[in-house]
Amino acid sequence: MIENADVEYATLRYEVGSDGILLLTLSRPEKLNAFTVEMCDELVHAYTRASKDDSVRAIVVTGEGRAFCAGMDLSVGGNVFGLNESLSPTMEDMRERAADPAILNGVRDTGGRVTLAMYDCLKPIIGAVNGAAVGIGSTMLLPMDFRFASEKARFGFVFSKLGITPEACSTWFLPRIVGIEQALEWTYRAEIFDAQEALAKGLIRAIYPPEHLIDEAREFARSLVKDRSPISIALIRQMMNRNGAQAHPIEAHQVESLAMFYTSRADGKEGVQAFLDKRAPRFSGKASAMPPFFPWFRD
Amino acid sequence: MIENADVEYATLRYEVGSDGILLLTLSRPEKLNAFTVEMCDELVHAYTRASKDDSVRAIVVTGEGRAFCAGMDLSVGGNVFGLNESLSPTMEDMRERAADPAILNGVRDTGGRVTLAMYDCLKPIIGAVNGAAVGIGSTMLLPMDFRFASEKARFGFVFSKLGITPEACSTWFLPRIVGIEQALEWTYRAEIFDAQEALAKGLIRAIYPPEHLIDEAREFARSLVKDRSPISIALIRQMMNRNGAQAHPIEAHQVESLAMFYTSRADGKEGVQAFLDKRAPRFSGKASAMPPFFPWFRD
Amino acid sequence: MIENADVEYATLRYEVGSDGILLLTLSRPEKLNAFTVEMCDELVHAYTRASKDDSVRAIVVTGEGRAFCAGMDLSVGGNVFGLNESLSPTMEDMRERAADPAILNGVRDTGGRVTLAMYDCLKPIIGAVNGAAVGIGSTMLLPMDFRFASEKARFGFVFSKLGITPEACSTWFLPRIVGIEQALEWTYRAEIFDAQEALAKGLIRAIYPPEHLIDEAREFARSLVKDRSPISIALIRQMMNRNGAQAHPIEAHQVESLAMFYTSRADGKEGVQAFLDKRAPRFSGKASAMPPFFPWFRD
Repeated sequence: MIENADVEYATLRYEVGSDGILLLTLSRPEKLNAFTVEMCDELVHAYTRASKDDSVRAIVVTGEGRAFCAGMDLSVGGNVFGLNESLSPTMEDMRERAADPAILNGVRDTGGRVTLAMYDCLKPIIGAVNGAAVGIGSTMLLPMDFRFASEKARFGFVFSKLGITPEACSTWFLPRIVGIEQALEWTYRAEIFDAQEALAKGLIRAIYPPEHLIDEAREFARSLVKDRSPISIALIRQMMNRNGAQAHPIEAHQVESLAMFYTSRADGKEGVQAFLDKRAPRFSGKASAMPPFFPWFRD
Repeated sequence: MIENADVEYATLRYEVGSDGILLLTLSRPEKLNAFTVEMCDELVHAYTRASKDDSVRAIVVTGEGRAFCAGMDLSVGGNVFGLNESLSPTMEDMRERAADPAILNGVRDTGGRVTLAMYDCLKPIIGAVNGAAVGIGSTMLLPMDFRFASEKARFGFVFSKLGITPEACSTWFLPRIVGIEQALEWTYRAEIFDAQEALAKGLIRAIYPPEHLIDEAREFARSLVKDRSPISIALIRQMMNRNGAQAHPIEAHQVESLAMFYTSRADGKEGVQAFLDKRAPRFSGKASAMPPFFPWFRD
Repeated sequence: MIENADVEYATLRYEVGSDGILLLTLSRPEKLNAFTVEMCDELVHAYTRASKDDSVRAIVVTGEGRAFCAGMDLSVGGNVFGLNESLSPTMEDMRERAADPAILNGVRDTGGRVTLAMYDCLKPIIGAVNGAAVGIGSTMLLPMDFRFASEKARFGFVFSKLGITPEACSTWFLPRIVGIEQALEWTYRAEIFDAQEALAKGLIRAIYPPEHLIDEAREFARSLVKDRSPISIALIRQMMNRNGAQAHPIEAHQVESLAMFYTSRADGKEGVQAFLDKRAPRFSGKASAMPPFFPWFRD
């Protein structure tokens, strides 16, 4: 149960515009927006909230100040990743006891908890990478639908240099976005690279001057959702991400059949009529009230 | 059981050339080849027939007149998608009762029935997109092996504008062809785009002047299958599409081992001998008589 | 059990440099390094050995003389692929009896046995394709992390011309590297193509003059692993290849959580400290002693 009325975040700003665009800003500028366990919890909350908030049609994510996110805050002392080093977790623990507080708080990767919430989100997510995006700053970009960057953006999957490994489900997302070869090079090499390289290799979609970045990302976000059914958009996001990773197209057929069935007798009626009338549709569906077959998956 | 002797299609033309190329033409030119339930049934029949017809080595698909396929025919009245709105189908229905006539005819996506037949086909399929390909006109291109377009071609995954969702297993095929980001943009945005954009983003392979499109597609088709074993071609198509989507390469190893085993003692004998003799091979294998391990899958 | 002290290969050279780079050379130059059952066994041995050999940080693979590997040696007589034609194997045999000597030696694809050993390897593998790479010469490149080629390199997935089918798990690897469309074209068409086409379509990473190929590949290999944790590198290779092919990112989350957990209290301590001290790290982890959750998979 998420109650939003009085939500104040310590590490984020959550601002919904009258155009339906949520501007979600990582906001620890004095720390280059370095990631903490608190920021993890707040990001999970914010994405889950935006998913259910009908005033939000799409999400633009950026960082306050000169960085996007400089990575895990390594200045916190103890196990800097928040892990309980007294445990000896196994794959069985991960599969069977993921919600057990000892595993949830002492073992599970905080970056992965954020990216799984992004994966489940019903709204398009657009990154506006304003500066350095290192470690979790880079891996949290991967579940986004689109990534734009300022000329000042920097990226780095620096884990192997720190003696650790990629996280935030990046070993699932990154090879799907840029291919296995580029995913391996960036994570083996663990160096910082610039926006031009990110663009050339397909990690980002476009580069803008810093002063135009947010406006461009926001305008792009608006253009995707204006006069579109929020139910269609939510189903597209979930169907493309989930069905595209299945072993056989029959899995898509089953879900698509139900999606067409239920939308064709709801927003689809208005959409077809508006098309025949040559006018803009007025959809009444809301992502907070998805069709009865949703969610079709049991994660 | 498919009987072809006297087949006449109402919405298609099925013409096999002496070069082994089937030219399959969507043929409702007065309706811009708009898709109907009848066209669905006929396309499933035609692809299944071509799969078993040894006179067909490869398939070129095009549209009659100025369009390729303008999408679902929205002028038919009632539920334009042919769905039985009195039902309340569930995922269990889709998984357990897909062949039940109530589900088959009243719930299952017609586009998906066509693309699954294309997926199962034993012959290469080459699209020759001569004009507008919208909605199912675009999604039915995705299971094809290669897509060529005329300068006049237009594409559009317009579902969210109509308040519905992508279908025809496109949420499985599209992200595999153009990547998740482009798949999301086209389906969120739901606008018409031209052949240049389709080429730039990898949806199509090449653009030709309208008067050369069919000849180029046909010549390409011929070049793929001439002096090649029809059994090899059929196995390649099924192995690449199916094995490439599995979670582990051992799945490919199991199938490839049997494919090599059975072909090496059949067409493989002739192929190796012809190679050593420096002459063209004379293969006797036929796709109508696949090796005993085929199909290795139980869809 | 692999004993290496006195290993001498008949078809390979295995040379570990003081820089930690293993140069693995296919060495039957009088036969254009054509592949045999003996070479299969020796390659499986060499990759398994390198995987456990802490003096090896990365592997560069090339061919002796003017070819890389001209394909299966078709001059050996009998079933040239080493298959026992008196058997009638089934998918059940492949799934249940893969280690049974009759299946292992008489049915299983030799190329696949090599590429599965490469897939399991804990060290980055870099191809330096010095000349013709045909049939298994091309398919054995696919599980490599990076492929470089000389201007003289030639490639060819020539199976359908010989009446046989692609092997070496190439129906799993190839569509993942170059996309389903290009994978189908090369394997249907079965022609030889040059390094420029391989580069344009993403099969290889770069082309070098023949005299610089090995040095460039070796320098690239060094740049990936210098001052990086061998445990991080090994986990990255296994996690990217395996997790990226799963149906859901939760599979990555489970593995990444354990990988971060165990590395953060081992090489991760030194890595973070070195970062804070602004010095190069001195990692003590070894790929021969992987963390307790490894292997997390049961192949």
